[in-house]
Amino acid sequence: MSRTLVELLQDGLPAEAILTDPDVTSSYAHDMASFCAAGDPAVVVLPRTVGQVQHVMRTATELRVPVVPQGARTGLSGAANASDGCIVLSLVKMDRILEISPVDRIAVVEPGVVNATLSRAVGEHGLYYPPDPSSWETCTIGGNIGTASGGLCCVKYGVTAEYVLGLDVVLADGRLMSTGRRTAKGVAGYDLTRLFVGSEGSLGIVVRAVLALKPQPPQQLVLAAEFPSAEAACDAVCRIMEGGHVPSLLELMDRTTVKAVNALAQMGLPETTEALLLAAFDTPDPAADLAAVGALCEAAGATQVVPAEDAAESELLLQARRLSLTALEAVKGSTMIDDVCVPRSRLAEMLVGVERIGEKYGLTVGVCAHAGDGNTHPTVCFDATDPDEGRRARESFDEIMALGLQLGGTITGEHGVGVLKKEWLAREIGPVGVEMQRAVKAAFDPHSLLNPGKLF
Amino acid sequence: MSRTLVELLQDGLPAEAILTDPDVTSSYAHDMASFCAAGDPAVVVLPRTVGQVQHVMRTATELRVPVVPQGARTGLSGAANASDGCIVLSLVKMDRILEISPVDRIAVVEPGVVNATLSRAVGEHGLYYPPDPSSWETCTIGGNIGTASGGLCCVKYGVTAEYVLGLDVVLADGRLMSTGRRTAKGVAGYDLTRLFVGSEGSLGIVVRAVLALKPQPPQQLVLAAEFPSAEAACDAVCRIMEGGHVPSLLELMDRTTVKAVNALAQMGLPETTEALLLAAFDTPDPAADLAAVGALCEAAGATQVVPAEDAAESELLLQARRLSLTALEAVKGSTMIDDVCVPRSRLAEMLVGVERIGEKYGLTVGVCAHAGDGNTHPTVCFDATDPDEGRRARESFDEIMALGLQLGGTITGEHGVGVLKKEWLAREIGPVGVEMQRAVKAAFDPHSLLNPGKLF
Repeated sequence: MSRTLVELLQDGLPAEAILTDPDVTSSYAHDMASFCAAGDPAVVVLPRTVGQVQHVMRTATELRVPVVPQGARTGLSGAANASDGCIVLSLVKMDRILEISPVDRIAVVEPGVVNATLSRAVGEHGLYYPPDPSSWETCTIGGNIGTASGGLCCVKYGVTAEYVLGLDVVLADGRLMSTGRRTAKGVAGYDLTRLFVGSEGSLGIVVRAVLALKPQPPQQLVLAAEFPSAEAACDAVCRIMEGGHVPSLLELMDRTTVKAVNALAQMGLPETTEALLLAAFDTPDPAADLAAVGALCEAAGATQVVPAEDAAESELLLQARRLSLTALEAVKGSTMIDDVCVPRSRLAEMLVGVERIGEKYGLTVGVCAHAGDGNTHPTVCFDATDPDEGRRARESFDEIMALGLQLGGTITGEHGVGVLKKEWLAREIGPVGVEMQRAVKAAFDPHSLLNPGKLF
Repeated sequence: MSRTLVELLQDGLPAEAILTDPDVTSSYAHDMASFCAAGDPAVVVLPRTVGQVQHVMRTATELRVPVVPQGARTGLSGAANASDGCIVLSLVKMDRILEISPVDRIAVVEPGVVNATLSRAVGEHGLYYPPDPSSWETCTIGGNIGTASGGLCCVKYGVTAEYVLGLDVVLADGRLMSTGRRTAKGVAGYDLTRLFVGSEGSLGIVVRAVLALKPQPPQQLVLAAEFPSAEAACDAVCRIMEGGHVPSLLELMDRTTVKAVNALAQMGLPETTEALLLAAFDTPDPAADLAAVGALCEAAGATQVVPAEDAAESELLLQARRLSLTALEAVKGSTMIDDVCVPRSRLAEMLVGVERIGEKYGLTVGVCAHAGDGNTHPTVCFDATDPDEGRRARESFDEIMALGLQLGGTITGEHGVGVLKKEWLAREIGPVGVEMQRAVKAAFDPHSLLNPGKLF
């Protein structure tokens, strides 16, 4: 008589690492995305060692059971959502920082290390791990790698992908593969490391990562500028970037977002402005850089330019920005957060277009944006108990992506495809692109066991 | 009666784009690597359009003829070497810069654009394309992408891979695929763009690239420091990097290299030193940074520290560094240039080990290094007319790679695998790595027509 999935898993995992109570396993069903289907996992496993992960994957391959890898489930695309009867493979218990080297400027970590934990640990060595998604206090490095996370720092420091030098990966059949390097440079063979970054757990299970670090920069100083229109704020963004400035942060909040943040947290942001731009520099002389950028903002029509006096004032402005999505969620109870990135020269067209789409569907759409990257988060606010509003929300969300593609952009700058945007991936990359991406998937996962139903 | 290869090529290419005279085609047989076998091409084609490249690949697939893509053939691993009966597909005639955008900080180029041409063109817009291999005056962007080229700038600015945002690629069967983006960020699907960078023409033909640019930094200022031993110079490198400094260049020349450069070009470098370290900063106040780094060099035992007074003096020091490989070639007529990159914390062990290997084989081995990256170029000088010396050169070359792997390094930091190091790739990435790399290759090139015999 054949043994069950759970019995086979028990051969290589301690009892406490296997969860089967449906009340418990159902709490692992989905990440933070709206409108994404999630199934019931057969079992949740919480391995602590590479060997245990290998055992899980060998078992899954033997029984042809799908596996959904998970970190902290803070993702916004449904990429970590369970499918019916799957093994949820949570990496959160593999949470050790194995090494921090100030000379080599690297950290070696397990996938379950929380982003903020790593950031603070390397900070004690005078080092800096830049990628800082909004969920940085809870999200894991493994999840960041799976979704190629961004954050506020990207305009100067780039995304997670830029910081992943090497990986240990457990393949679908349980074999362990090392990719990449722990050196500053290396070109031995295909860059499979980078292929895994952003692959949303669909090619293998990352069990160890070598991450590049930077020296800790000086504390950044923030400037806030008010604009009479979103276009004027976008014009300032273009002038700043064309002028050769390298801000450590360049963020935009539209009127709707500013009001929502004030309503949630009484931040005292100026509600009469149409757009608020936050710029920051972590250079040796940030005040001089802010003065130059402030002048460009004024030239673009800013009605008020307020540089922060010190770090505390800077931090307050950033807090307002960080609250944006939570604040927009409070407007109508539910949101669909889009993640369209356009060339920054097209940013104004994007913002104007999003406003028109909101009007067309009779919905409130707030936009906060990593403006320096052209990465917008148009956030559709809606009442989930009203089916018609839900339908309109979904349609406007799609129309926003179509606009982004039309402007030469991408459907996702940093959140990933997951379940939420899989119909849209094909529209962006075309049939040849999809065919080649599927061929790569098949090369690593011939039985389609790893996070099936995502991406494609 | 079946039509010949050349007849079929003529259907989609003008006569002047097809070279068949063996005296001419043989001049396309190999790149600049020593000890790498090269075959006789059946034909050399020089397309000017994407459509012509597609025609070449369709023809090659129809007749199952291998294709070897080439740029300027300045590579150092034999990756561009012809195989017998192949089509050499030279991209040098596709040399247009299609777009430069200061707001979006991108350039869109064809693969045959020469690195220096692009660098100068973007410089006129106040922009900077950092990757600067030694051959930058002649090498092409397509070749840089194929080999993921590095250069002197990498310690601050990284390698070519970091600057490739998107690609148009003609696949083995002639279909055109677009990958990546022209936005600052983007995570829609697998990162096939990065997979193509460094793939040495073995996955597809790059016909168009979107490249990221930086603002032009201030002119860099260089400091030279003399050390009584290679270890002391490496200690200085570690202190500089551990101290959180971000030099725009950190290069090491050992005694042998210094002497060779003086012999070639009467540069007046100090021959009594055991190692010369060059550090540069392109910061707002480079003199202050050089003073701090000079003090660290002295703490590490430097006998003399000489900051350049101005740009002209800086450029002279860099010229000496750039002459290193040519100068070492003049020592005995032939060289084998290794490209081992180690964690910079192991750099001293690498240099001491290389010296021992030279002594063991009775050969002169000069080392110049991108020291800030741990990327060494141990260069074995030998007389190619002496078979025994040639054998010893090859053995010492291999022993140097073995040492690099033992120190946690990679067999190639920036030159690539090509023909030269293909036996070594397997030693570095292991059997599972090789198997998965082959699977990726098969997904893109099922008939093994693209640059066969390279990498694996």
